[in-house]
Amino acid sequence: TNKTLLMLPGDGIGPEVFNQVRRVVDWMAKNRSINFDLKEGLVGGACYDVHKQAITDETMQDALDADAVLFGAVGGPQYDNVERHARPEAGLLRLRKEMDLFANLRPAVVFDALLDASTLKPEVIQGLDLMIVRELTSGVYFGEPRGMQDYNGVERCIDTQAYTKAEVERVAAVAFDLARKRNSRVHSVEKANVMETGIFWRKTVTELHASGGYQDIELAHMYADNCAMQLMKNPKQFDVIVTDNLFGDLLSDAAAMSTGSLGMLPSASLGAADENGQRKALYEPVHGSAPDIAGQDLANPSAMLLSFAMMLRYSFGLLKDADMVENAIQNVLKSGIRTGDIMAPGCTQVGTTGMGDAILAE
Amino acid sequence: TNKTLLMLPGDGIGPEVFNQVRRVVDWMAKNRSINFDLKEGLVGGACYDVHKQAITDETMQDALDADAVLFGAVGGPQYDNVERHARPEAGLLRLRKEMDLFANLRPAVVFDALLDASTLKPEVIQGLDLMIVRELTSGVYFGEPRGMQDYNGVERCIDTQAYTKAEVERVAAVAFDLARKRNSRVHSVEKANVMETGIFWRKTVTELHASGGYQDIELAHMYADNCAMQLMKNPKQFDVIVTDNLFGDLLSDAAAMSTGSLGMLPSASLGAADENGQRKALYEPVHGSAPDIAGQDLANPSAMLLSFAMMLRYSFGLLKDADMVENAIQNVLKSGIRTGDIMAPGCTQVGTTGMGDAILAE
Ligand SMILES: CC(C)[C@H](C(=O)O)[C@@H](O)C(=O)O
Ligand SMILES: CC(C)[C@H](C(=O)O)[C@@H](O)C(=O)O
Repeated sequence: TNKTLLMLPGDGIGPEVFNQVRRVVDWMAKNRSINFDLKEGLVGGACYDVHKQAITDETMQDALDADAVLFGAVGGPQYDNVERHARPEAGLLRLRKEMDLFANLRPAVVFDALLDASTLKPEVIQGLDLMIVRELTSGVYFGEPRGMQDYNGVERCIDTQAYTKAEVERVAAVAFDLARKRNSRVHSVEKANVMETGIFWRKTVTELHASGGYQDIELAHMYADNCAMQLMKNPKQFDVIVTDNLFGDLLSDAAAMSTGSLGMLPSASLGAADENGQRKALYEPVHGSAPDIAGQDLANPSAMLLSFAMMLRYSFGLLKDADMVENAIQNVLKSGIRTGDIMAPGCTQVGTTGMGDAILAE
Repeated sequence: TNKTLLMLPGDGIGPEVFNQVRRVVDWMAKNRSINFDLKEGLVGGACYDVHKQAITDETMQDALDADAVLFGAVGGPQYDNVERHARPEAGLLRLRKEMDLFANLRPAVVFDALLDASTLKPEVIQGLDLMIVRELTSGVYFGEPRGMQDYNGVERCIDTQAYTKAEVERVAAVAFDLARKRNSRVHSVEKANVMETGIFWRKTVTELHASGGYQDIELAHMYADNCAMQLMKNPKQFDVIVTDNLFGDLLSDAAAMSTGSLGMLPSASLGAADENGQRKALYEPVHGSAPDIAGQDLANPSAMLLSFAMMLRYSFGLLKDADMVENAIQNVLKSGIRTGDIMAPGCTQVGTTGMGDAILAE
């Protein structure tokens, strides 16, 4: 039986970059006999326009039933004043929470051909290959209570940063396991000098490291403010970084920007492994919906296609096919074909479809 | 009557860089008839070694009584296992809280002579001059409840991110007032897309902007993750950034690192203005205690001296004298005299004292 793949293009450039995924899916079916049962759904503003909510229960159920979810991007200025619970982001947050996608894998990789795209000096980022593992279903994003409250007679607004031991352990385990397949080094990042959850995070990660069979992994602890600096000063010192939901949001974006090519970066969000080792999973490019260039055949489809490749690798164990997609993209870059976001002197500029053509040809 | 100045050198390189402040204080007394009543106290590990706490009640009282506090740096590896309430940072946090220093001003300025010190490309940072105004006495740093708790039968660890309207307003007012003396642009930074306090922060700042007489200031809102990226992509787009305690911690360090010369960056932490317009204030360099180079006459005293200059300007209205200190440092840089942290080919390397000599000579 075929695997089910739910496609959620979303808003802005999401649908455009998805068109290129469809072409690769067709190619894989024809040339590699890889067949998916494809489903498609609305999410974000696209769903709001029709249903006045950011995702329907039906699509949510499809996501829970699917073997993997491919996600484009959500959001746009026309939704700025939509009530909070129906805003485009709410669709993404609900998917994360209900699919229990607690581990967000955000690689920051510098392609040699794109070395100059970064605002950082080439020697600082050449060969950069780090992975941020961000906790994605807890922390201040979801902690209760939240909102306005009377506290000892004072009117205040609050959010609650909350973690259980199990929540920290499971994401740390993902980081240790990943590090073992990489360079066996993990930086655990928090603010243990000022936050109780920081102390708790550090202690829990340290204990798991010692007693969970991870002594072969080198573990270091770093404060989040220092990590923000180090990502600019010397990002190559890192192999795997594991951190909470909010720090992970800022730090993974900073790491992504250090590469200079957001249009090239995929991500994976993984749930717990079932008895067969299968994890619920959602794959999405790091770039947003980029409403300013939407619908103009300008967007770079690479990050979306690399997200598809991550899916082949992590959800379906199709390592060879994942490599094929990744190598095709590398080769296209080397050949000097570029979308506008990564355009450089001497290269040939193409649009979204042109980039798709070139990648398919490779 | 003379103004009282409390000096808290602290740990690591703190005492060394303070020695250079003392020389400038003496010079000012002799040549500019500026006299301070100098007090000195212990803070951080230096205080812990004697009193088993990070600051004594007596020193705390001196700080509250002083017209300004000059602070060096705290911390060192020998205090890593000290109980939380007595750790070096606790002294700093207590000073902030009890002096009610709610507005932390963190300039990020690139000196032309040090353009190459940054890991960012010169064109990205040349002429950079931005100011981060960080809320410093509330938010998740101090919010209650915090620690382990049973929540509906689940054992969890929490911190509380909490803000009142007055807390947001007063720090936003500082940012608007500062912007007016600069380029009249303020970016207010939060995560209104996921945090209740983010929505509250945005709303409060927007209302104050509209009704507080700040319509001449251009106000923009930005998510904190995007701000972390923009500080790497194009920091020159910013004039003043105002943000909460935790985001401010990460973002001000990222901004500082973008300049490439932490050893050059001062900061000011200000309280509310009294009936005479005087604010409680603490001035400290951005660099930490740098235990690895402490006691070796290697530290750059510039950030400490620029903190002293900020004090002359903000606490005592001695603009001319502040300029003198700042210009002296600029001239020394131009002349090619450098400490090790900012050393460059063709320059002359000196130590802490040598740098002090050069600055005094200028
Ligand atoms: C869209 C937004 C809710 C989201 C987040 O803050 O997690 C985004 O910034 C991300 O990192 O995926
Ligand atoms: C030392 C530490 C408690 C402090 C903070 O987190 O505020 C420091 O990082 C700072 O920015 O002054």
